[in-house]
Amino acid sequence: MRLATLRDGTPDGRLVVVSPDGASCAPAPVRTLQEAIERWGEVTPQLAAVAAFPDPIEPMQVLAPLPRAWQWLDGSAFQSHGDLMDAVLGITKPKTDLPLMYQGTSDRFYPPISEVKFPSEALGIDFEGEFGVIVDEVPMGTSADDALQHIKLIVQINDWSLRTLAGPEMKTGFGWVQAKPPCGMAPFAVSPDELGGAWRNGRVCLDLLVDWNGKRFGAANGEPMGFGFHELIAHAARTRDLVAGTIIGSGTVSNANFREIGSSCIAERRGIEVLDLGEAKTEFMRFGDTVRMEAVDAAGRAPFGVLHQTVVRG
Amino acid sequence: MRLATLRDGTPDGRLVVVSPDGASCAPAPVRTLQEAIERWGEVTPQLAAVAAFPDPIEPMQVLAPLPRAWQWLDGSAFQSHGDLMDAVLGITKPKTDLPLMYQGTSDRFYPPISEVKFPSEALGIDFEGEFGVIVDEVPMGTSADDALQHIKLIVQINDWSLRTLAGPEMKTGFGWVQAKPPCGMAPFAVSPDELGGAWRNGRVCLDLLVDWNGKRFGAANGEPMGFGFHELIAHAARTRDLVAGTIIGSGTVSNANFREIGSSCIAERRGIEVLDLGEAKTEFMRFGDTVRMEAVDAAGRAPFGVLHQTVVRG
Repeated sequence: MRLATLRDGTPDGRLVVVSPDGASCAPAPVRTLQEAIERWGEVTPQLAAVAAFPDPIEPMQVLAPLPRAWQWLDGSAFQSHGDLMDAVLGITKPKTDLPLMYQGTSDRFYPPISEVKFPSEALGIDFEGEFGVIVDEVPMGTSADDALQHIKLIVQINDWSLRTLAGPEMKTGFGWVQAKPPCGMAPFAVSPDELGGAWRNGRVCLDLLVDWNGKRFGAANGEPMGFGFHELIAHAARTRDLVAGTIIGSGTVSNANFREIGSSCIAERRGIEVLDLGEAKTEFMRFGDTVRMEAVDAAGRAPFGVLHQTVVRG
Repeated sequence: MRLATLRDGTPDGRLVVVSPDGASCAPAPVRTLQEAIERWGEVTPQLAAVAAFPDPIEPMQVLAPLPRAWQWLDGSAFQSHGDLMDAVLGITKPKTDLPLMYQGTSDRFYPPISEVKFPSEALGIDFEGEFGVIVDEVPMGTSADDALQHIKLIVQINDWSLRTLAGPEMKTGFGWVQAKPPCGMAPFAVSPDELGGAWRNGRVCLDLLVDWNGKRFGAANGEPMGFGFHELIAHAARTRDLVAGTIIGSGTVSNANFREIGSSCIAERRGIEVLDLGEAKTEFMRFGDTVRMEAVDAAGRAPFGVLHQTVVRG
């Protein structure tokens, strides 16, 4: 099952069920994705029963599947990325067996095809390609094993980051506020079964193709997460109930062979350059730049559709 | 004007206008505080026109004024507190002219009179008495001067903290997730004019009386904030639009003479003990413990009403 949210003038938009080819849709029996996730057990059979898709999808009418959420917690579960970022930011983290995670702004997720405004190019504008999951209500203390069943939908996210601000904010210990403005989201939220064998061990085992200004920049696979999404959920739920509709992110998709396959964010490439060349050569994004992100399966299909965002002056 | 939200079976509750003596109320012309803050200019005259308060307020029916918010950003604007916490946690922060701020969980704020569950006493359960403001929509790049006019309501908050987890999470640079479960909020959200002369320079110049298990623990005044709320808002809005209904917190209210007037959280008292006695003597909260918080003006009135929460096993 794939779901999308269409523009209708309200902040939460209008939920639709998407056809197998991703080109058309049908109105969902509930108005919003938030409402669906709150009543998932009751609503799923109705969503799954939709078999006719009379309405063509107009890409510019597509919002983020969840245009705003009550909670967004983003992990950093790819070790090859984490190690590089620490090197480039000059951070020395204590050794821990716990996942890394921060609380991000959730009041809006930008549409898949959109212009994203930033106040200045000097802030180090960067994309971060990642995967995320949307859970129903998760009680405090839920184990990783039990968390798996709370994963109702999977999404693909562009976590916009302002690198000039990121290091200084990390050094305060308070985490990121200015360095992490709202994210973008690819068009379709998909149920785990929709990914077939590519959903395993709580991981999205797909290549995430990232193009910057029309040129391939990265093609990392989601499988080598150091923690599965179920483990990230258990971490998040240790001291709180997670509200239905909470989104949990993987952090930047990254593979150890990043020198061959590329990266899902500019900062990682810059980190590689620092290691290999002694200094970062690649600059961050400029106004007018575009980033395109598409996860593809073995058959070349894109279950989440295509995210294509343009950086503009705010 | 003072507003409260009453339990009605929905997550957002039912907005009411509160009588001058805080004992009774009248239904508001809009259903929720979120809706009111989104249409503040239009709604304020209607709220202000309410002059009859036919319904007695039953304290157990009172929710947080904003029972859930799209965004909660908490500062740490009292220098006397910040310095102590750094000492006790072993954190060395870089020198900066910027306010400290973290993104907190906003999907729920506990009712003023409520039991708050935690998984273990070993996590270092602590209260933090603070003030907060609720803004209407604030465009990215808004200056501190302009931010003042976006402050529509003022609230009093208990920012629950788990100290055993706080230090290790700070050291990751990612900020707090497990160490900062949801906050509680005192009954009434008040308009700035309601505070009269106690609202000045973007600060709530009132004593915040904090009682732990019925014994006075602190009585710090909100005036010595190192940054006013307008400056905290400008900081938050530097790289993002703030959605209407965003709550910005002051951080633990603290005064430099804390040895005389006490503290608004246990961690601060422990910090003083470390400085003065070489080690912390005061333990954190136990299951069954209570905390009561009440800001009082010169006439002894409590504009935000009384918060009274009990710690229970989750």
